[in-house]
Amino acid sequence: MLKRLLAPTIEVHAHCDLPCGVYDPAQARIEAQSVKAIAEKMADNDDPEFTTRAILIKEQRSQLVKEHLWVLWTDYFKPPHFEKYPHLHTLINEATKLAGAGGSKGSHDIEIADQLLAKVDEIAEIFWETKKA
Amino acid sequence: MLKRLLAPTIEVHAHCDLPCGVYDPAQARIEAQSVKAIAEKMADNDDPEFTTRAILIKEQRSQLVKEHLWVLWTDYFKPPHFEKYPHLHTLINEATKLAGAGGSKGSHDIEIADQLLAKVDEIAEIFWETKKA
Amino acid sequence: MLKRLLAPTIEVHAHCDLPCGVYDPAQARIEAQSVKAIAEKMADNDDPEFTTRAILIKEQRSQLVKEHLWVLWTDYFKPPHFEKYPHLHTLINEATKLAGAGGSKGSHDIEIADQLLAKVDEIAEIFWETKKA
Amino acid sequence: MLKRLLAPTIEVHAHCDLPCGVYDPAQARIEAQSVKAIAEKMADNDDPEFTTRAILIKEQRSQLVKEHLWVLWTDYFKPPHFEKYPHLHTLINEATKLAGAGGSKGSHDIEIADQLLAKVDEIAEIFWETKKA
Amino acid sequence: MLKRLLAPTIEVHAHCDLPCGVYDPAQARIEAQSVKAIAEKMADNDDPEFTTRAILIKEQRSQLVKEHLWVLWTDYFKPPHFEKYPHLHTLINEATKLAGAGGSKGSHDIEIADQLLAKVDEIAEIFWETKKA
Amino acid sequence: MLKRLLAPTIEVHAHCDLPCGVYDPAQARIEAQSVKAIAEKMADNDDPEFTTRAILIKEQRSQLVKEHLWVLWTDYFKPPHFEKYPHLHTLINEATKLAGAGGSKGSHDIEIADQLLAKVDEIAEIFWETKKA
Repeated sequence: MLKRLLAPTIEVHAHCDLPCGVYDPAQARIEAQSVKAIAEKMADNDDPEFTTRAILIKEQRSQLVKEHLWVLWTDYFKPPHFEKYPHLHTLINEATKLAGAGGSKGSHDIEIADQLLAKVDEIAEIFWETKKA
Repeated sequence: MLKRLLAPTIEVHAHCDLPCGVYDPAQARIEAQSVKAIAEKMADNDDPEFTTRAILIKEQRSQLVKEHLWVLWTDYFKPPHFEKYPHLHTLINEATKLAGAGGSKGSHDIEIADQLLAKVDEIAEIFWETKKA
Repeated sequence: MLKRLLAPTIEVHAHCDLPCGVYDPAQARIEAQSVKAIAEKMADNDDPEFTTRAILIKEQRSQLVKEHLWVLWTDYFKPPHFEKYPHLHTLINEATKLAGAGGSKGSHDIEIADQLLAKVDEIAEIFWETKKA
Repeated sequence: MLKRLLAPTIEVHAHCDLPCGVYDPAQARIEAQSVKAIAEKMADNDDPEFTTRAILIKEQRSQLVKEHLWVLWTDYFKPPHFEKYPHLHTLINEATKLAGAGGSKGSHDIEIADQLLAKVDEIAEIFWETKKA
Repeated sequence: MLKRLLAPTIEVHAHCDLPCGVYDPAQARIEAQSVKAIAEKMADNDDPEFTTRAILIKEQRSQLVKEHLWVLWTDYFKPPHFEKYPHLHTLINEATKLAGAGGSKGSHDIEIADQLLAKVDEIAEIFWETKKA
Repeated sequence: MLKRLLAPTIEVHAHCDLPCGVYDPAQARIEAQSVKAIAEKMADNDDPEFTTRAILIKEQRSQLVKEHLWVLWTDYFKPPHFEKYPHLHTLINEATKLAGAGGSKGSHDIEIADQLLAKVDEIAEIFWETKKA
């Protein structure tokens, strides 16, 4: 629980391009958790109608992960951040790829969902460091 | 900061109607914070083009607050919750009204945004009590 | 036909949060009828590709039922209505749940679609009473 | 009121491309009524913030009129209908243009909204004739 | 390649109803190519999860073809065009039907996708003739 | 015209994450052209209602530029591309920023729209080189 309390929570879609200045990596993480929960439910239920709904909804939730991360990449992070964290471009690019066809959209492997969550957490850690800076 | 760590964070859109079981009031709160930040920026800037964009984006963010709260109301809360918290229907109804035409959509009053945030926090408090129960 | 002529027709999404003052429960009912028609077609056709499309489209139509009803709940109905019809909160809450994972999204049972239509009609009856009042 | 009871009600978005077979011109009409109500409110209120919101919402409602009519044109009407009603293509094309930049999107003239409603009613009349045929 | 260089490229959604005056049939064509590529991939892969995703995505891409063509029909083409090309209404109507339930939404037949592409190309040819006129 | 014929055309949204393999930078370019055309029209017309609609639509078109470029960045470009073109991350990041609050969303300066178009063309050039490779 302490980990939860201290964990960076990530949000991106909240950024509104006014910009309002509100960013929080929590939204991407919540959607990634949803992707994992769907993968787990798929492992426990092979009713074909349920599976179809699960694939459909996993597609939508994975897409939201991508969108939230894209907003962070374009709207929150600035040149000095990319200078200070030279792997940040690659990290976010890999995270968004992990939410796509070669990742959680194309697969219901729980391991893939865990990799996605780990990448989102890495981005969140950098995010919160930059907020403190 | 302690308040932030302990504060309920609210999310609703993350619920995917599979259902994946992931709910968190944080998303509604993030959008409501965005609404308040927009109202504050509007108070400091009367460039007409900026004002137009601010109204447009405040409309979208207020709508997201409504949608996140609706998902909590329909998809997370169950009959026993409504029994235990008899004002819960009214509370959520008022919160969604506060994000509509008579609230943060129709007004850029910072006070309105604060009332909206307060209602969202009340809902989040109940949410987290039910999670512990 | 007389029943159709006299029947309350329900619409919610038409409300635009200006607010323009145009509400009509017809839209929720049309979407609920669509849900029922999809369930009936699923009963008559077990081609897997058709079934996949039917599940996908039933998901979207059920979502529209929810959204139309949410708009009525938040934007049309006012405190005096909830006072006069004390079960109105519960009624709308149940109707939206019936269009979700535990209702017409998760099931293609025609009986579920009929229950959803019946709830929508109950809401429409109250809606039209309040319009006359 | 009799007129309302007997009037064709038009809906298009309800058609789901399964297809579920549920079409009703009511939705296009409800959105067009919303467009007119917005134009009327704009005539009575020249608060700039209200005007901005009204323009924004009129844009969305006009777009919905277009979409509902497009669905009727493509998904409901079939070659024999176009043969029997040779002006049907032109009628729907004109109606959708009336909901665009040269019509209710670009203007808040109440007269334009009335013309749009009249066109929608003409389409609805044909729709209901074809249903009886 | 010359064919590609000279080929009409079609776009419709780019028209923004300001109107900005930018139309190009390329977008409809790109989506129709996507529909065909999906149909080809479905022919080569019968993994059920892949098939479900393919049906879902083919539904979305077909819908985009329809929307892009509708915009051309309503927003770009004017009465003199319909006079000069008397089959233009029918041509666009048939093309949009080919992207619907009776066409590329309801079928993964590559031949259907080819028919859709051919219709889109016919529309593009007329489009570019009118631009030169 | 030769320039048009030879020019890279860019598209991104057409990629469907199946993936269908259809990418084309044309869509981003068409939206960016739309942004420029809107800025030009705003320079020639200071009717306030027109200006409001222009700001609203410029916001949507700029958003589409961002989305199309994000899809190229995540879904089309692969690690070897980023290795061969080390400035590609920065280039796409700058282009998406140019379509945001600090670029064509927040400004109607025609010069900004030209900068956005230039960046999109640079990305398209690389895109077409990688297609030939």
